[in-house]
This record gives sequence, C-alpha cells and structure tokens, in this order.
Amino acid sequence: MTFKAYRLAKRPDGPFTSDCFEPIELERPELQAGQFLVKQTHMSLDPAMRTWVQDNEDSYIEPVRPGEIMRSYGVGEVVESRNEDYPMGARVVGITGWAEYTLGGEDMQIVDPSVDVGALLSALYVPGLTAYVGLMKIGRPVKGETMVVSGAAGSVGSLVGQIGKAEGLRVIGVAGSDEKCLWLEQDLGFDKAINYKDPDLEQQLAAATPDGIDLYFENTGGPIQHLAFSRMNRLGKIVVCGNIAEYENQEPSPGPSWVDINLKALRVEGFVITDHYDKAEESTAAMLGYLEKGQLRFRSHVLKGLDSAVEGVQMLFAGQNKGKLYVEL
Amino acid sequence: MTFKAYRLAKRPDGPFTSDCFEPIELERPELQAGQFLVKQTHMSLDPAMRTWVQDNEDSYIEPVRPGEIMRSYGVGEVVESRNEDYPMGARVVGITGWAEYTLGGEDMQIVDPSVDVGALLSALYVPGLTAYVGLMKIGRPVKGETMVVSGAAGSVGSLVGQIGKAEGLRVIGVAGSDEKCLWLEQDLGFDKAINYKDPDLEQQLAAATPDGIDLYFENTGGPIQHLAFSRMNRLGKIVVCGNIAEYENQEPSPGPSWVDINLKALRVEGFVITDHYDKAEESTAAMLGYLEKGQLRFRSHVLKGLDSAVEGVQMLFAGQNKGKLYVEL
Repeated sequence: MTFKAYRLAKRPDGPFTSDCFEPIELERPELQAGQFLVKQTHMSLDPAMRTWVQDNEDSYIEPVRPGEIMRSYGVGEVVESRNEDYPMGARVVGITGWAEYTLGGEDMQIVDPSVDVGALLSALYVPGLTAYVGLMKIGRPVKGETMVVSGAAGSVGSLVGQIGKAEGLRVIGVAGSDEKCLWLEQDLGFDKAINYKDPDLEQQLAAATPDGIDLYFENTGGPIQHLAFSRMNRLGKIVVCGNIAEYENQEPSPGPSWVDINLKALRVEGFVITDHYDKAEESTAAMLGYLEKGQLRFRSHVLKGLDSAVEGVQMLFAGQNKGKLYVEL
Repeated sequence: MTFKAYRLAKRPDGPFTSDCFEPIELERPELQAGQFLVKQTHMSLDPAMRTWVQDNEDSYIEPVRPGEIMRSYGVGEVVESRNEDYPMGARVVGITGWAEYTLGGEDMQIVDPSVDVGALLSALYVPGLTAYVGLMKIGRPVKGETMVVSGAAGSVGSLVGQIGKAEGLRVIGVAGSDEKCLWLEQDLGFDKAINYKDPDLEQQLAAATPDGIDLYFENTGGPIQHLAFSRMNRLGKIVVCGNIAEYENQEPSPGPSWVDINLKALRVEGFVITDHYDKAEESTAAMLGYLEKGQLRFRSHVLKGLDSAVEGVQMLFAGQNKGKLYVEL
C-alpha cells in the first residue's frame, strides 16, 4: 500500500512558489517494535515553515533540506501500533510532515477526541505555547499597560491579544484587512484594530496609543515595526516573535536605530519556541483556564486535501488566510 | 566676589562646537540655612553630555536648556557651609556644572581625601556604576562567555572589559587607535583589541571570535554594531549602553534587522544609569573589591582650567582622549 506525501523540491529564493514542493508516493512501512503509524487527519500550515527551509545549519531547528519530506505538525489517529503507549485508535498531535501517513515519534501527545481541532492546533499546541511564552514570559506585562500586536489576526497574534485582554491590558491589533480588523474588535474584544495598509497608518497608531506603547509584540516586521518603535514608552518591552514580512527577502530590512533602545531603556527580546517546550504544561493549563472563562475565540480557515497545502502555504504569506490555517486530509 | 562658569549658548545641530558654550561671570551667592558652597577641583567630561543638551523634554533626564549652566559632575571641596552634614573642608563628588563654584546638593557624597581622583571619577562614580550595572545586571554574563565591548578605551568600556576579565569572560575590545588597542591588551589584560578604523575590521573580528559572541556591550554604534550583531550566538545578549557615534547625527543610522533577534533568540536591552542609582552601594563595594585585588587600572586624561572644557568635550566625540577625561580647575 502506498500513500502520498510532499517533499521540498528546492529552497525558495524569495516567496514560496508551487515548484518548491513535489508530490511523491511512499510505501506504507513495516513497523518495528516500538513504532506506530499515524494517519494524519489535520495538518497545520504555519509561518515558521519559511524559516525551516532556509539553508542555515546554525538555525534553532534542523533545516528541511531539498529531497526531504516537508515539515509540519498536525493531528492524526494511530492506525497501527507496536507501541503500547500509543494504542490503535488514539488521537495524537505532533510533528507529522506533509504526508497522509507518518511514523509517530516520542514528541506526539495523545489528546482527547472531544477537543475541537481548531483549539487543538492553536491554543492548545504550538501557537498557544508561543503566544503564552512570548507574552507572559518574555513580555512580562503589567496590568493597565498598552500593548500593540502586529499580525494580530494570525494564529499567534489573535491569542496574544486575547490573553492580553484577559490579563488587563489595553490591546491594539494591527492586521492586513478591514475585515480582519472588524473581527478583532467585534469578536475578539480588542480595544482597537488598525489596517496596516491604510495610508494614514501612522496617524491611526498615534490616535490609538495616546499614552504611548508599553509592550510591542512583533509578528510581522514591515512598516509597523518602525512606527510602533517610535511610540515606545521608557522601559518598554518589545517581543520579537516573528517577522513574516521579512522571511521572503534575501536582505531583511534594517531595524530601528539603537539610540532609543539606550535612551528609553527598552528591552527588545526574541525567542524561538523550541527553547520553551518545558513550559507546555503551564501554558496548556493557562489556556484551558482562559477557554473555560470564554476568554478565547478562534476562527479556522480549512483547506481540503493534502494537495491544497502547496497553495495554502503561499496564502499564508500573502495574508489571505482568515484564522488558523490548516488542511483537512 | 565673582567666579567663572559656562552656560549652554545654543544646542548643537550635529557635533558640539565651541560656540555652543558661553563664559559668564557669576556672583558668589549668600548661603541660606542648609546650603553649602563647593569649590570644584576636578570636573568630569562625559559622552552623555551630548544627550543632555538634546531638545527632548521626554528624556530620561531633564535636558539642559540654552541659557542654563552646562551640566557635569565633578569633585570639589566645601569652602563655606551652613549645613552640618557637609562641613568646611569636606571633599565631595556629585553634580557640579561647568563652574568654578557651585551650591552643593543633596546628591553630593562626601569622599575620603586619600582616594585617587581618577578612580573617584571613574570606577567609584557614574562610569563605574554604569559599567557594573550594564555588565552584571543587564548583560548577566556567565563565566567562559565571549564578550565584545565597543568604545573599549573609554571610561565605561575600559571598566566593562576589566570587570569581564575579573568575572572569567573572554574579552575583545574595539577602540579607535592602535595605541589604545595596545593599552587594552598590554595594560588592561584584554584578550584582544581591534582598531575599528582598520579596513579588515570584519576579518579581525571573525578571527578574534571563532566561537561567536555571547555578549556584546555597545558603547558606540557605528560599523562595529552590525558586524558584532552578525556574529552573535543563539541566546546572546546585547547591552546598549551608549551610541556615541550616533549622537551627532540628526538621523541616527538604522540598526540590524530584527529577523535574527527572533531566530537567534537574542536580547537587546538598553539602560540609563539614572534608573539604577539604588545599586550604587553594591557597585561601589564591588569596585573596591576589584581595586583591592589589582583587577582595575585607569588612565586619566587631564586638561587644565575651566576654559579647556570647551575643547575637551569636542575631543571626546573625536575619540582623541586617552583615558578618563577631566578638567583640573
């Protein structure tokens, strides 16, 4: 029996293009003792994929090399098992790859079948951990502070903003369409959302942050970075979680001058989530708490079939997805 | 009786120029109850002076406005007193201003006459506190790490490097002349010093940091900033203490892209010393400890007479001083 998978055909120069990926047929493997086979049901598409394929052996994570199955995480069901910790029928979440079937690994967690797949691929997995660690451990917000979050309609950004509201911050979101902004304000309870494509972005940001910015949560890079930086208050904090607008540039754009980092005593701190897996239990507990109190909402953008991942990953960088993007297999 | 002082005549557009300052004659004041008069003996000249005169009412410190006596700190002797805490003959250090005499303030500390004036104006006062807080509280070094410090021959940089050596770091200094580099290597015990004016700066920095940089202590800005940034190790720390190369620019140069702050999980943190006066006692104790063990050396660059401050402050930004610059009155 064979199944379909996609491998990285070549590294992109700039944006992901369809010819970066190549479908292949793989043989269903014979299981060794201790192994188990997972049939993937839902595969997540994430901005980090662009950094995973960079030719950078010093990266925080092993790069995906041309010829290898493209990396992803997802949800699946154990369909064959020679490992008693992962019995047949168990639902798991973990690193899967762009494939209909995958050999399960030790990183896979068994999850209750009743949990909504949207929650599972966002608040309760890597995006949720990323939002929680980035905001609470790196940003270390204080009730009453003003936070600006870029990429606010994305899977991490929308959680950061909602956790911020739950923790008593004033939250301004920056997103790429009026429709997304409406969703942030009306459904997620952001105090204000701004479309970064508006020509009067600078004026809108100033009007939305009359007392300056205490915490800037950076998901995108791009023009908002310099504008938000210029409005930082003394002793402000900037969490550098991602730079989706930069990943496709060969030469990333320069950042703001360091003079104000000095004179305003700012802290600009980046993080990668692989350094923080030890906080997963704490994060999950916190997320379940927010969920119980009705403080987190999601929206899922669902594509159908493994083939749709090729277009899907391009949508992500064009900002065309509305909510957590994943593929239903 | 009158005495001489200098006031800020105008704010500089770019570099300090002689016409930024204007000599005036002041009347020796009649003391009120609680006041005391200090005859300044040694006046410190410091890079921070350029930021003090900026037209920025939101600054970390009250700006010096045109028409006001120029700010400085220095050492002096109490020559008249109606304050029993500051008796006649006491030696004090504190905010003095560009003046032969000044009314003492509550910030003034009485110091033992036996303490060397060079040590007093560097290790045991603001430069020492700046070096200690910047390295130990912001940088938080770990024994064995590689540190690069820019402005390494300056009053703060030379202390940072020596504290680094005392704390078990590998220390590379960056300075502006071969003579300064020789001093850093031969007298102060830096592992290596590099002249940033050398055309092969990038190659020299690479050769001096074969295992990358864990801690970059930024005093200058300028070309070394981007080069050091590009060699940062994962989870590295950058202390932004000053940007002397930028203070004279109307438009400060851009900093490095934030992509690597994210992907390498770097922390770039600025500080201003006025936020850390509560650590003065701890810093002084630590400095006295290093001094006792012979781990700190100085060199003083002494100018004579109040008038020499006008040229002196310009030397500072041209990098022409050799060691802690101060004026003997």
